[in-house]
Amino acid sequence: MVIIMETGAAPEDISAVTDAITLEGLTPFENPGVERKVIAVLGVIDAQKIRLMDKFQNMPGVERVTLISDPYKLPSRQCHPKDSTFEVCGVPIGGPLLTIIAGPCSIESKEQALETAHAVKAAGATLLRGGAFKPRSSPYAFQGLGEEGLRILAECREATGLPIVTEVVDPHDVGIVCQYADVLQIGARNMQNYRLLQRVGQSRTPVLLKRGMGVRIREMLMAAEYIMVEGNHQVILCERGIITFEDSTRFTTDINAIPVLKHLSHLPVVLDPSHATGSARYVGPVAKAGIAAGADGLIMEVHPQPGEALSDGPQSLKPEAFAQLMGELRRVAAAVDRVCPPDQPAR
Amino acid sequence: MVIIMETGAAPEDISAVTDAITLEGLTPFENPGVERKVIAVLGVIDAQKIRLMDKFQNMPGVERVTLISDPYKLPSRQCHPKDSTFEVCGVPIGGPLLTIIAGPCSIESKEQALETAHAVKAAGATLLRGGAFKPRSSPYAFQGLGEEGLRILAECREATGLPIVTEVVDPHDVGIVCQYADVLQIGARNMQNYRLLQRVGQSRTPVLLKRGMGVRIREMLMAAEYIMVEGNHQVILCERGIITFEDSTRFTTDINAIPVLKHLSHLPVVLDPSHATGSARYVGPVAKAGIAAGADGLIMEVHPQPGEALSDGPQSLKPEAFAQLMGELRRVAAAVDRVCPPDQPAR
Amino acid sequence: MVIIMETGAAPEDISAVTDAITLEGLTPFENPGVERKVIAVLGVIDAQKIRLMDKFQNMPGVERVTLISDPYKLPSRQCHPKDSTFEVCGVPIGGPLLTIIAGPCSIESKEQALETAHAVKAAGATLLRGGAFKPRSSPYAFQGLGEEGLRILAECREATGLPIVTEVVDPHDVGIVCQYADVLQIGARNMQNYRLLQRVGQSRTPVLLKRGMGVRIREMLMAAEYIMVEGNHQVILCERGIITFEDSTRFTTDINAIPVLKHLSHLPVVLDPSHATGSARYVGPVAKAGIAAGADGLIMEVHPQPGEALSDGPQSLKPEAFAQLMGELRRVAAAVDRVCPPDQPAR
Amino acid sequence: MVIIMETGAAPEDISAVTDAITLEGLTPFENPGVERKVIAVLGVIDAQKIRLMDKFQNMPGVERVTLISDPYKLPSRQCHPKDSTFEVCGVPIGGPLLTIIAGPCSIESKEQALETAHAVKAAGATLLRGGAFKPRSSPYAFQGLGEEGLRILAECREATGLPIVTEVVDPHDVGIVCQYADVLQIGARNMQNYRLLQRVGQSRTPVLLKRGMGVRIREMLMAAEYIMVEGNHQVILCERGIITFEDSTRFTTDINAIPVLKHLSHLPVVLDPSHATGSARYVGPVAKAGIAAGADGLIMEVHPQPGEALSDGPQSLKPEAFAQLMGELRRVAAAVDRVCPPDQPAR
Repeated sequence: MVIIMETGAAPEDISAVTDAITLEGLTPFENPGVERKVIAVLGVIDAQKIRLMDKFQNMPGVERVTLISDPYKLPSRQCHPKDSTFEVCGVPIGGPLLTIIAGPCSIESKEQALETAHAVKAAGATLLRGGAFKPRSSPYAFQGLGEEGLRILAECREATGLPIVTEVVDPHDVGIVCQYADVLQIGARNMQNYRLLQRVGQSRTPVLLKRGMGVRIREMLMAAEYIMVEGNHQVILCERGIITFEDSTRFTTDINAIPVLKHLSHLPVVLDPSHATGSARYVGPVAKAGIAAGADGLIMEVHPQPGEALSDGPQSLKPEAFAQLMGELRRVAAAVDRVCPPDQPAR
Repeated sequence: MVIIMETGAAPEDISAVTDAITLEGLTPFENPGVERKVIAVLGVIDAQKIRLMDKFQNMPGVERVTLISDPYKLPSRQCHPKDSTFEVCGVPIGGPLLTIIAGPCSIESKEQALETAHAVKAAGATLLRGGAFKPRSSPYAFQGLGEEGLRILAECREATGLPIVTEVVDPHDVGIVCQYADVLQIGARNMQNYRLLQRVGQSRTPVLLKRGMGVRIREMLMAAEYIMVEGNHQVILCERGIITFEDSTRFTTDINAIPVLKHLSHLPVVLDPSHATGSARYVGPVAKAGIAAGADGLIMEVHPQPGEALSDGPQSLKPEAFAQLMGELRRVAAAVDRVCPPDQPAR
Repeated sequence: MVIIMETGAAPEDISAVTDAITLEGLTPFENPGVERKVIAVLGVIDAQKIRLMDKFQNMPGVERVTLISDPYKLPSRQCHPKDSTFEVCGVPIGGPLLTIIAGPCSIESKEQALETAHAVKAAGATLLRGGAFKPRSSPYAFQGLGEEGLRILAECREATGLPIVTEVVDPHDVGIVCQYADVLQIGARNMQNYRLLQRVGQSRTPVLLKRGMGVRIREMLMAAEYIMVEGNHQVILCERGIITFEDSTRFTTDINAIPVLKHLSHLPVVLDPSHATGSARYVGPVAKAGIAAGADGLIMEVHPQPGEALSDGPQSLKPEAFAQLMGELRRVAAAVDRVCPPDQPAR
Repeated sequence: MVIIMETGAAPEDISAVTDAITLEGLTPFENPGVERKVIAVLGVIDAQKIRLMDKFQNMPGVERVTLISDPYKLPSRQCHPKDSTFEVCGVPIGGPLLTIIAGPCSIESKEQALETAHAVKAAGATLLRGGAFKPRSSPYAFQGLGEEGLRILAECREATGLPIVTEVVDPHDVGIVCQYADVLQIGARNMQNYRLLQRVGQSRTPVLLKRGMGVRIREMLMAAEYIMVEGNHQVILCERGIITFEDSTRFTTDINAIPVLKHLSHLPVVLDPSHATGSARYVGPVAKAGIAAGADGLIMEVHPQPGEALSDGPQSLKPEAFAQLMGELRRVAAAVDRVCPPDQPAR
């Protein structure tokens, strides 16, 4: 941590800052700047970083405080240099085999869910996604089937063997959702719902953490820290598009985030090209871009009749389009020394 | 609602769309476009808008669907042309008298809270703010005193007569927070936590709804709709800065949002210059700008020793600076035919 | 300048950096960091800052380079602590009297220009704006009358006594535009057209520098530096809205930029509420906000028949609306100890 | 074009709008809306779109005007359904063979330029990039060698056979730059310098048009229209990153822009991963993403000693790293049925 004093800060302001550092059990180290004084803070500060930054930032005469290393710890590569990998019901997450999560935005009925589950499995998906609790921007939009949706998901797992990824939106639902889900999804709009993060951190079910649309990468890693500090280290990071001035797509896929997250963190990283573009037309090219950029997997929306979907129809692929895309992804994956799971035609 | 077909859409795609409109009990109206066909949807669609938009948007041959009027209803001026006003423990919200909410970011101790409460009351504040449950971006930062903080807030109300504004972060805390609070605050990071919005909507305690940092005005009004549709119409909208590329301040105050919200909605609108700038140095000018732009009030952070604050110190005003700013605000308020509450020197 | 080495940077990388600093005639100063080495660069570096930052940033083992003070110099308060003020044909810029620049977006005809000029003068404007060379986003939109427009502007000055502000878009037009204009305007889309900045810097005509819609405040001050380093110190900074995700207004007025620019720079700062909102409906509230926030003036679009304007009609005020707004601005200005110029009813 | 009237617009406002449409030689077509009147404008409006939109948008009673089709014409797929391809000195642009443009940010000396040119040619690049006129955000940064730089570029072409891509920053330099360059580059900061666009449009030298960092895709296509309407149809569109709130990379690569531009336009599209990330570490993954997403080529910065580069060192690849990346790109290109040019080891 480096504290930059204002030009012409009073000597008593400077000594107040160095005293405060010493009181914290740390060592101040003054740099003889020409224009202004800079004070380095030496010592192990780790989890205290944010508190200390807050503290020093508002002492008289302080211009600003700069962190030398990152404010998060558990998701960082410094803490765990090698890629994290784990398994969900036998499906590996984070190694050479890509994680392909597919399914409808919402579970609408048993028929729709089963049809989609069989189709995505046949095309090679290794996990099934589907929403039972849906956070929708309009109170009049379809809000999901709730626990009935979870039961249908469990039947789909029974029928196909695919582990289930589903969203949890309320800290008090974590228990019930864990009874059905193999991976808990934290949606973009809840990425800074810290109470929810803590509760999923206290569970032992792996978590798929979607990036908020107005959230920096560093803050996303702080959200992962919230989960991990509670003891749950099986976290998958998911880029799903950020909000920018560009309006030709629903969000802007931050493709840079893929190599940046892989550089800063040891956690597996997946891309959601369906939400990141908002349009089935662009899902394929952006999915391929994600794999080429080094993502460990993809999460995509598939619906048998996108025109009848109760949510997110415009960005859902038909099963045939998904199967064709999987074929294309296999070629791109091979070109970057990864393996996209093979298709599993029903016998 | 207007449905724009692709150039060269097939006649069967067009008739499929008009059939779907008719099936919904609405009337299709075809425009004989030169380049492409445009179909207007006639009839009362109101709460169905989002569902229908989703539906038509993914029928074959459809280029895009445009809404002619807004997707929200209860917060809109069309629904309620005159300004909404209401009272919180006798304090008017939304009329000529500005609502001035002030207090510390977090309740840290009884002494700190009482000292601040007395100071802001003396300077003219009409409500006391203070956080008991704090959503912090780091799990290692101070998370608030919880229910103990609520009790301290109640003591401050007892001592000063100021009604209390405090944040609720978990749907299951709404009951307990309502026992102490006069206004429930929904924080920016929870603005799209729909479960929480529904629960505060089911209470009869007024709500201060802060805009999410990556959320459009239209989506903020949809969040207000979530609360209002449950029966709670006492909602205060709060602009608190949005996330942009500019990095010289913590957020970018969207000052345009003040007149835009006043134009689109009948709900009272307040500005939070503390979070919107992140720096005590800029709170004054931006507070004055908010009043000049037509805001119905302000919410500001005040702390007796900003340098010792456990959160948000850099953007907190000292009591003396707050009192001076209140004097300046009275002059600006008068210049736009509003009244900023007078100071109340302790006898 | 502070150079932050990577965790575990090799000793030879560190000594290469300290050697490079010494070779530049500066003094390296190593901080004994616990996690990673930080090297301060001591000495007077001023104009070399950007070059040195570029240089050190890509030496092996360097994580990043942080500037302790700003990369611009001439527009900064450190260089010139007091507010800059100057006169344009006797009209003071930057003192207690606000600078009110008004007129049509484009000069369309002598009649339109003269009518507007008389109207804005009567309402109290102190300078006349009007475009002769128009940079339009479509090649099919009206591009301005060119030199004919400049001649009309000169006639308007003759008739009203108002000095003229007009845009220059090509470095090779600076000479001809200077023959007519009293203030040269650099438009938002040309704010980083450095060749143009240099040429207007070589002239002795004051410059109104509009902020680019995707440009940070710091880069705007670098653009001012480009002009000032050529010898022209009469620069007016203009906030005109930035591009963000919010789409209910054409741009987002960065109201924070007003106090930030006043804090960082001694140059006069004006606000353009017409472009910053894109809608006549919101010009008034945002104009008042600008004055309340400490702007030294405003630039606004006025057109006798906005419905017939060849450009920017939707954001243009009618003369009567402008006159009424000026009355309101006088009250707000007085409330912040500034003076908005009085009206000058024609005799 | 569709004109949406305000709720409760007066009958005389509605007839004024329909009269105005008729006066323009077009046909108004009223939709019997329940809440508000919508008027479609029928007829061929093409190049008049922007003017008409401006006009109708500010008539009394008009809420807003919506374009049904895009405001640009010449770059659109509707105008030219098949992909445009052309040749630069025998090098194909826009077909199955990817266009790989590489070289230093700035031409610094004959030695540096020649060394880089030979290296990128050996690795497979098909065009050489290099700046002679450099638009830099600081007036104290290296501004390029000017015409001397152009002469060095010509020598490099002589020595390697690689056609030359170089930036032009002033409309009056177009003539001289055309004497040396095979492709004229318009930089991001000049993308809305319309005078410059017109001049390069009047030349017959192909143009590489970089997207401005704060510019929407639609406005970028309008900039292409500016060039094409002057008669020069050999335009290459270049995505180079946009400005957003994310600060872990210099810009945010808008990877969605690749398939969006390919969908909307017939022009060849390339990606600049060097500027879009600002860091050599991320150039490789993002370059591969660009090819996987369907880009027709890449433009990348290569420098023999990035640590000594006078500009953009941190994002420049060393020749060896570039050669290795080219090998990886060949595999990704093949996976999407494109060909990345083979290496050309010097004999």
